[in-house]
Amino acid sequence: MSTIDINTIAPRPHVAITCKAAVAWGAGESLVMEQVEVSPPQAMEIRIQVVSTSLCRSDFTAWQSHAIFPRIFGHEASGIVESVGQGVTEFKEGDHVLTVFTGECMQCRQCTSGKSNVCEVLGLERRGVMHSDQKTRFSINGKPIYHYCAVSSFSEYTVVHSGCAVKVSPLAPLEKICLLSCGVAAGLGAAWNVADICKGSTVVIFGLGTLGLSVAQGAKLRGASRIIGVDTNPEKGEIAKAFGITEFLDPNDSNEPIQQVIKRITGGGADYSFECIGDTGMITTALQSCCDGWGLTVTLGVPKEKPEVTAHYGLFLTGRTLKGSLFGGWKPKSDLPSLVEKYMKKEIQIDEFITHNIPFEDINTAFNLMREGRCLRCVIHMPK
Amino acid sequence: MSTIDINTIAPRPHVAITCKAAVAWGAGESLVMEQVEVSPPQAMEIRIQVVSTSLCRSDFTAWQSHAIFPRIFGHEASGIVESVGQGVTEFKEGDHVLTVFTGECMQCRQCTSGKSNVCEVLGLERRGVMHSDQKTRFSINGKPIYHYCAVSSFSEYTVVHSGCAVKVSPLAPLEKICLLSCGVAAGLGAAWNVADICKGSTVVIFGLGTLGLSVAQGAKLRGASRIIGVDTNPEKGEIAKAFGITEFLDPNDSNEPIQQVIKRITGGGADYSFECIGDTGMITTALQSCCDGWGLTVTLGVPKEKPEVTAHYGLFLTGRTLKGSLFGGWKPKSDLPSLVEKYMKKEIQIDEFITHNIPFEDINTAFNLMREGRCLRCVIHMPK
Ligand SMILES: NC(=O)c1ccc[n+]([C@@H]2O[C@H](COP(=O)([O-])OP(=O)(O)OC[C@H]3O[C@@H](n4cnc5c(N)ncnc54)[C@H](O)[C@@H]3O)[C@@H](O)[C@H]2O)c1
Ligand SMILES: NC(=O)c1ccc[n+]([C@@H]2O[C@H](COP(=O)([O-])OP(=O)(O)OC[C@H]3O[C@@H](n4cnc5c(N)ncnc54)[C@H](O)[C@@H]3O)[C@@H](O)[C@H]2O)c1
Ligand SMILES: [Zn+2]
Ligand SMILES: [Zn+2]
Ligand SMILES: [Zn+2]
Ligand SMILES: [Zn+2]
Repeated sequence: MSTIDINTIAPRPHVAITCKAAVAWGAGESLVMEQVEVSPPQAMEIRIQVVSTSLCRSDFTAWQSHAIFPRIFGHEASGIVESVGQGVTEFKEGDHVLTVFTGECMQCRQCTSGKSNVCEVLGLERRGVMHSDQKTRFSINGKPIYHYCAVSSFSEYTVVHSGCAVKVSPLAPLEKICLLSCGVAAGLGAAWNVADICKGSTVVIFGLGTLGLSVAQGAKLRGASRIIGVDTNPEKGEIAKAFGITEFLDPNDSNEPIQQVIKRITGGGADYSFECIGDTGMITTALQSCCDGWGLTVTLGVPKEKPEVTAHYGLFLTGRTLKGSLFGGWKPKSDLPSLVEKYMKKEIQIDEFITHNIPFEDINTAFNLMREGRCLRCVIHMPK
Repeated sequence: MSTIDINTIAPRPHVAITCKAAVAWGAGESLVMEQVEVSPPQAMEIRIQVVSTSLCRSDFTAWQSHAIFPRIFGHEASGIVESVGQGVTEFKEGDHVLTVFTGECMQCRQCTSGKSNVCEVLGLERRGVMHSDQKTRFSINGKPIYHYCAVSSFSEYTVVHSGCAVKVSPLAPLEKICLLSCGVAAGLGAAWNVADICKGSTVVIFGLGTLGLSVAQGAKLRGASRIIGVDTNPEKGEIAKAFGITEFLDPNDSNEPIQQVIKRITGGGADYSFECIGDTGMITTALQSCCDGWGLTVTLGVPKEKPEVTAHYGLFLTGRTLKGSLFGGWKPKSDLPSLVEKYMKKEIQIDEFITHNIPFEDINTAFNLMREGRCLRCVIHMPK
């Protein structure tokens, strides 16, 4: 429960808010609900009342590994602007927004290039602090609590740079579209922007979580004729059909290496392969599963260990390409509103990815479900 | 000297020819001039009187390594069709041709795709035999002598599949255009077809041999504004200017890692980087030298050792792409004649790559010059 009335949205940029946040005190330790102090937004920042936030594998991986603590995770979220800092003209109190883990300053070499979404200024924040002053906006009794990806949505209120949020239609359901803040958009964009999948092609997807199944959705909408899904969790076979997967392979079902199975059944390899697991070894497998000449492997995963990708040079010399996909190549400010529109027009699926709806105080349930491989997205709802 | 009159070109498809060939008897051993028997061309094959052949680093690497022996190397060559096997309608005696190390059958999935030059039927031949029957066309006293890349041009006569040769204008000087059979075409194509370099861009080229300098030529013709050449041989700095290199860097000149130097002087990395050495470690360096967002690394090299490329996944996730380039993406039959035309119209340079002209009997001199890094291309001329 928050100590202010969150239904009253009025400008109060200079007041800290005390509210509930799920704080991670150490690697892999259950989150603890704490009263945290959320500073007012600084210049060019906005303070957001989080409405819904879903758990992405990237939160889970960072939480498991030896990163900085105490920290507030969460980066896939929707909310309402509570107050704006000095100089912010793009947002006003009451605006509906999606947060983004990789921002868009609209001014750096990358943002102005017209061919990149890897902002130099508001790019991936790994150190747990805000871009502008390298400080945190969260504290407990004066002790700083670190951010994650400069979003930190596992809190009733959070502060983000105004370049790390996107205004969306107030008609769109915030409790669903939070999935466009990362997972669903990242997968669709990998299929559409990064791979640019052609009609009639053969696609192989390694890992059938929200990312992989969003790639499948994207491939299906592009008219791919075969969409082969690979997952070591046999339960994904049935689930995957709803997202366009035409054939399911569990690598444990056969002694034949999975890349060999794929080469055999596709007559030489797929046109596109996607790594959506977070295992660099599977990037190699994905490369080996696509065909000579034009085979394209797109890697989306964020590995927990072994950050090095290794592959025989001959895979490239015979015509394969390896590309990475960060947030599906979408420029958040420029592109996210149109994805929300597509959802409103029922041109893309989001609801089907939501396997669990969880109240904020039960957030650890979402972590358990992800550990056990029993969810796609768990949406965590803030108290109303 | 050959035992037949090579000036008389008349159909004699059923007779073996005895001629001189430079035979490699073991890894790294000097070639030995031998009298070899060259079988008549089999169905869909042609026998070629080699006119000129240049030494490419790929011959050198294969010769140094533990491959099959005895063998006749050479794959960058021009010649005149001496006789044709059954079913060959594309060529007739007297036609001027370039050989190609990666053929074009025009019928397989790759050849008919319109997006690949990696023929499934006449692709890279590593086992030293002909594609059709897995046998050799060379022998000494009945003992087979293996082929290299199904070309083996270090012989007065050779037999190749008709898909591994391209007819060219009889007006083009065979003693020059042999360089289009591999090195110069492979470099130009890497710049034009594979990287598709844009006007005004920044390009970094690792390794300034014929491959790297052909990439430079291609980049210059595309209007790249900075073409940075990197080579550990300081003598390449001066030579490279003639091919469009605007800045030369010798990694040994500084303690700062070369990728860091490049990131610094380009303000974040190049648009394109090319590995033209044959060192997988330098593929990693090339990736690190190109920029976030759209940096493209093209690898051309054929390594002597360590075939595995290793790179941090983050290089890809932040927007880099790694592609291979085999023969610059050219489809030999479809594309080589137009490159010959471009040379005839002086739109591309070839002559400048020829640093040495050597009579066939001195072929080991070419190997010595390449070992010592004192040549670009040595062209070896057959006796007239
Ligand atoms: N690039 C981006 O923009 C971006 C954005 C969000 C998430 N991610 C990353 O994408 C990856 C997937 O995210 P998610 O949220 O869909 O995760 P998830 O955990 O829901 O799904 C991963 C799937 O991979 C399967 N899997 C695990 N090991 C496997 C193996 N060896 N072979 C086959 N399948 C295997 C699991 O069973 C699971 O179904 C993660 O690494 C995440 O960090 C990247
Ligand atoms: N992909 C293809 O189609 C294709 C075709 C022909 C040749 N190749 C390969 O391309 C590569 C280059 O061929 P080439 O004939 O130009 O060779 P080359 O030997 O003439 O040139 C290589 C250059 O790299 C330089 N070099 C060596 N180590 C270096 C280092 N660590 N850092 C910087 N520079 C270094 C050398 O000094 C030399 O100038 C070889 O591996 C060859 O096998 C590929
Ligand atoms: Zn995410
Ligand atoms: Zn920016
Ligand atoms: Zn070559
Ligand atoms: Zn073919």
